[in-house]
Amino acid sequence: MADKVKVGIVGGTGYTGSELLRILARHPQVSIQSITSRGEAGTPVAQLFPSLRSELDLIFCTPDEANLTACDVVFFATPHGVAAAQAKALTEAGVKVIDLAADFRLQDLTVWEKWYAHQHPSPELVPTSIYGLPEVNRAAIKTAMIIGNPGCYPTATQLALIPLLENKLIDISDIVVDAKSGISGAGRSAKVDMLFAETYDSFKAYGLNGHRHLPEIEERLAVMAGAPVNITFVPHLLPMIRGIEVTVYANLTKDIAIADLQALFEQRYANEPFVDVMPTGSTPETRSVKGTNRCRLAVYRPQGRNKVVVTSVIDNLTKGAAGQAVQNMNLLFSLPESMGLDTIALLP
Amino acid sequence: MADKVKVGIVGGTGYTGSELLRILARHPQVSIQSITSRGEAGTPVAQLFPSLRSELDLIFCTPDEANLTACDVVFFATPHGVAAAQAKALTEAGVKVIDLAADFRLQDLTVWEKWYAHQHPSPELVPTSIYGLPEVNRAAIKTAMIIGNPGCYPTATQLALIPLLENKLIDISDIVVDAKSGISGAGRSAKVDMLFAETYDSFKAYGLNGHRHLPEIEERLAVMAGAPVNITFVPHLLPMIRGIEVTVYANLTKDIAIADLQALFEQRYANEPFVDVMPTGSTPETRSVKGTNRCRLAVYRPQGRNKVVVTSVIDNLTKGAAGQAVQNMNLLFSLPESMGLDTIALLP
Amino acid sequence: MADKVKVGIVGGTGYTGSELLRILARHPQVSIQSITSRGEAGTPVAQLFPSLRSELDLIFCTPDEANLTACDVVFFATPHGVAAAQAKALTEAGVKVIDLAADFRLQDLTVWEKWYAHQHPSPELVPTSIYGLPEVNRAAIKTAMIIGNPGCYPTATQLALIPLLENKLIDISDIVVDAKSGISGAGRSAKVDMLFAETYDSFKAYGLNGHRHLPEIEERLAVMAGAPVNITFVPHLLPMIRGIEVTVYANLTKDIAIADLQALFEQRYANEPFVDVMPTGSTPETRSVKGTNRCRLAVYRPQGRNKVVVTSVIDNLTKGAAGQAVQNMNLLFSLPESMGLDTIALLP
Amino acid sequence: MADKVKVGIVGGTGYTGSELLRILARHPQVSIQSITSRGEAGTPVAQLFPSLRSELDLIFCTPDEANLTACDVVFFATPHGVAAAQAKALTEAGVKVIDLAADFRLQDLTVWEKWYAHQHPSPELVPTSIYGLPEVNRAAIKTAMIIGNPGCYPTATQLALIPLLENKLIDISDIVVDAKSGISGAGRSAKVDMLFAETYDSFKAYGLNGHRHLPEIEERLAVMAGAPVNITFVPHLLPMIRGIEVTVYANLTKDIAIADLQALFEQRYANEPFVDVMPTGSTPETRSVKGTNRCRLAVYRPQGRNKVVVTSVIDNLTKGAAGQAVQNMNLLFSLPESMGLDTIALLP
Repeated sequence: MADKVKVGIVGGTGYTGSELLRILARHPQVSIQSITSRGEAGTPVAQLFPSLRSELDLIFCTPDEANLTACDVVFFATPHGVAAAQAKALTEAGVKVIDLAADFRLQDLTVWEKWYAHQHPSPELVPTSIYGLPEVNRAAIKTAMIIGNPGCYPTATQLALIPLLENKLIDISDIVVDAKSGISGAGRSAKVDMLFAETYDSFKAYGLNGHRHLPEIEERLAVMAGAPVNITFVPHLLPMIRGIEVTVYANLTKDIAIADLQALFEQRYANEPFVDVMPTGSTPETRSVKGTNRCRLAVYRPQGRNKVVVTSVIDNLTKGAAGQAVQNMNLLFSLPESMGLDTIALLP
Repeated sequence: MADKVKVGIVGGTGYTGSELLRILARHPQVSIQSITSRGEAGTPVAQLFPSLRSELDLIFCTPDEANLTACDVVFFATPHGVAAAQAKALTEAGVKVIDLAADFRLQDLTVWEKWYAHQHPSPELVPTSIYGLPEVNRAAIKTAMIIGNPGCYPTATQLALIPLLENKLIDISDIVVDAKSGISGAGRSAKVDMLFAETYDSFKAYGLNGHRHLPEIEERLAVMAGAPVNITFVPHLLPMIRGIEVTVYANLTKDIAIADLQALFEQRYANEPFVDVMPTGSTPETRSVKGTNRCRLAVYRPQGRNKVVVTSVIDNLTKGAAGQAVQNMNLLFSLPESMGLDTIALLP
Repeated sequence: MADKVKVGIVGGTGYTGSELLRILARHPQVSIQSITSRGEAGTPVAQLFPSLRSELDLIFCTPDEANLTACDVVFFATPHGVAAAQAKALTEAGVKVIDLAADFRLQDLTVWEKWYAHQHPSPELVPTSIYGLPEVNRAAIKTAMIIGNPGCYPTATQLALIPLLENKLIDISDIVVDAKSGISGAGRSAKVDMLFAETYDSFKAYGLNGHRHLPEIEERLAVMAGAPVNITFVPHLLPMIRGIEVTVYANLTKDIAIADLQALFEQRYANEPFVDVMPTGSTPETRSVKGTNRCRLAVYRPQGRNKVVVTSVIDNLTKGAAGQAVQNMNLLFSLPESMGLDTIALLP
Repeated sequence: MADKVKVGIVGGTGYTGSELLRILARHPQVSIQSITSRGEAGTPVAQLFPSLRSELDLIFCTPDEANLTACDVVFFATPHGVAAAQAKALTEAGVKVIDLAADFRLQDLTVWEKWYAHQHPSPELVPTSIYGLPEVNRAAIKTAMIIGNPGCYPTATQLALIPLLENKLIDISDIVVDAKSGISGAGRSAKVDMLFAETYDSFKAYGLNGHRHLPEIEERLAVMAGAPVNITFVPHLLPMIRGIEVTVYANLTKDIAIADLQALFEQRYANEPFVDVMPTGSTPETRSVKGTNRCRLAVYRPQGRNKVVVTSVIDNLTKGAAGQAVQNMNLLFSLPESMGLDTIALLP
């Protein structure tokens, strides 16, 4: 068996960091070399995340102690801007980079700088980076040095729309994406708005005046469609920790029977290990993918009218973040794509 | 002070029934004469609903014991078909009828019989019945003998769309209604699908192949618009007990600034005691209306594009059922419209 | 009708503050004069608490603007120490003080200073203050100038034990209080531990090495028992916003039948408007008191052995804080004790 | 590598059944031969439990089709009485039996018949059966033909008390067990009481007049203590799906320092793969064991008084049912005890 992949993690105290640790702790071909946190240097990870007690004997270290250039790959579970600032040195040392934040999600830097409100730290690297959605970019991912790991909403949305766009079945000037996410998407920082007592037993829309996942969705869909795509994107906050559901609405440009839509989705994803096209008439539930790297989706044509509706669910921290990052790592190092990603969701 | 309104309730063992009892127990101008339940006859209501202990000294009785013709008004919190079967005798005895089920929500009986899958028990009464959405039908409600109390989703949806339709601002051939409801909407009957262990910590769409509130929404909006309206309606199940949020998407037919949209909504609802147009940029939360008869909504034009988005929240059991029924009763008996409906939502 | 009671609130941005506002906004004999917050001065209360939109037209002001000496009564919904610092000036001006924090809950200042870790700001006022548990101290409350409003756990615990202690039925050297509280008890401050994603779908004990409500419980029970009482008190954190349940265990010192225990509890609370002794065999649920000022309890003697068990539920923000404070205010101003406190819990 | 263990499951449509499937589907040394359900015969398991889609290609069959005597071991995830009725034929055919219900949990059949209210179907097998708590009975389990898999509350309770009882440190005439469980413990049957709308956002005690886990706890603890043990056991219902927390209270019979108590617990469980003694001052959370076979516990001596308190958490469906059953199976077939049981809990 080959040597294990030497992994470094920058910024592991948030929720994508803890999810990476959960997955990598069980990955048979990974050796975690170091995990950095300025604030928690010296603290065992199992003290911050008690679920890791007896599971992972690892201590947060400072960036200096981390010796990241000795790794094969470094995951960035950091705020925007950090990966881009460090990617040059790492890739020059031959270390691959997987950024779970947004530094390498957009190719259009004008758009990036508008939505992220500062100058991109390493614009010259962006054209060489690969958008890490394996269902679209598998071949390119395998040889990349820098992966921009997709956002959570964009993952669920793109998987819902790929078969429709690739087959030019819908009007791309008017697509509605009504998205709902669990609260873990807001991260592990102390904000009054995200307190239990502010969010439990309630539901609301948010980000109606602009969410950073909108330009990502539009850029990537435009690549698939070969033309600009117009998305109305409204995210909502679910009183749950994990799980994203998106319901996508588009107008059909030709009259295609629901059975043919179903067949087209099934064919498109027949060889995808992590996309499950559910049978006609069923509806995917977020619980059925919780803690897993799967996307489950279903396609509908309600009342036989010309609107096609797709509902798609993922776990925002797994397929929407850390799981997809590990899927990308498996591709980068020629490991079986599902290695370390075979959790079955708890039910109930 | 005038005599109290003598009220009868048919079928009070479900959730709209218990919500009616909660409200009516505190209504200063109501005297509850009887509440019927074949299954629970003889049981004190406070035994079934412990929140009513020390609050309401009332016992479920059989329909025979109820003497409903001696009431001023009878609420039906029953399955579809029951109110229509009894309305003739009651109204002939001068008793007003408020049906919380769907017997009098649709004027088009062909549509009704298709969606409710049986023959309407009293088709001749339908044309005389009034759809009980006070924000649209206040004058007609005041003199009605039979009120069809609106469905929960249709209430939230219509309140979101009224100003747009009345002002002919949107393309009525393509409106998307993405709706989310708490689980109490499924009623108080023992179903595996509605167990806590099947629904907690999860979210899904449902009813994609057709929900009975679709024809109600389309019929009522067509009345407002003066032409057929085409709705794509997808309901979802929230892991909460109470609360509906609908996010409505439509294409503007003229270029109207968001400030003007905001003004138009505020003017339309300026005198409505139960509709709160929130300021630009805020988003209504279901918790802010829980247990109240209010609808809160906000209007958006994301990215300044030509899609108008409205998000609207109600409590499905209150403004979406029992609260609106009491609002209608107040109108029927010339009482102040808000009487008995002044609960402030718990926060947190 | 008499003049309304002029009320001031110091520190209204937390959860006991917002609960006070919810209750007082509907109290027919109250006029809220001012509510202070250094941090939110100038902000309408309805902006912070959207449930109050259209309900309460009030703006947070600075302490200087508040003119509290013109009030009849001032509620302190502040951290410990604030009420004690201001009570002297207010009471000398004839203004009554109700402290929802702990400054006037303990008579033993040595104990107070040990558990609250600073010097009491006005020790001379403590002997004149009255512990505001109406079920025990009603007469004294009516003529008090300063009320120490009881803690949430102590309220639920004392109501469970009063009949047993007053009748000397249990061994006071060994009482176990296993208590569980919703998360709103932790207040409205931004702490990682209280984030939704850290607390939802989980349960744990906390405070095992000492919770500040322990000395309060022990001091008050000792007064009732006429001798020192030894409590083992373990609080737990429920994944809910509101609600406390305590299960109390004690050894009977004489062999009393469960029917006699039941009768004794019913007699003790027969005239109490807010204590509901449930029938033998039923169990109180926190939902049945949510948003109300009620305590519901039930007494058991499992297997007929010599252990008596009482389970007691309250809403920690209402009977456990703001509701009880208003009940005390009603007593202070000779208003009907239940005025403004007649909410019925939502069910479901 | 040895042949895989051939496994049959009787009654797999409930929650312990689905949990068995989740675990066994990933067990490297198991081959599931058949799973029976009269009601669901012919239905793919993945249709009932969508989390198993693409994971397990298995169809419910009738008992006749199951050919259970060709298995190495049969798990019973059935109501009480079923395993006992079939165990004789199976064990005579050399098939081992693991009963997840209560047929083989009690040795005292008089007690069994009192609490389970019918005659035991195979009393002669009871003395040969082994109580499947590996932390106590590991050696005996390895050679058993019939395992009585412990109840969920008894598992959490015994693990909390073993070190205290084995070292005769507590008064066994007065132990209080305050237990809280998620709702999945009530099973997957349609009951109004277990609907989401009846249980969400609420908390209550139940079973105060007698829960079937009481005699199991008392019998097993008496075996450990060598004398009768008197337990006051009060279960409570948590608004969560999975997770049990028990807080155990006992009086110390000698003055032992908390550090010594801690050391004693750590030593007792030093070699136990599934029991984690947490450091002094921390408190176990149910989320940290969700979906895992672990028990985490902490020991306290509050205020240094003579009451010892232990708080212990497990997942009721895993260590409290199916996980422990697989742990027992591993022991029966000389497999590594943790095989197939290495899930890390999701956090958040």
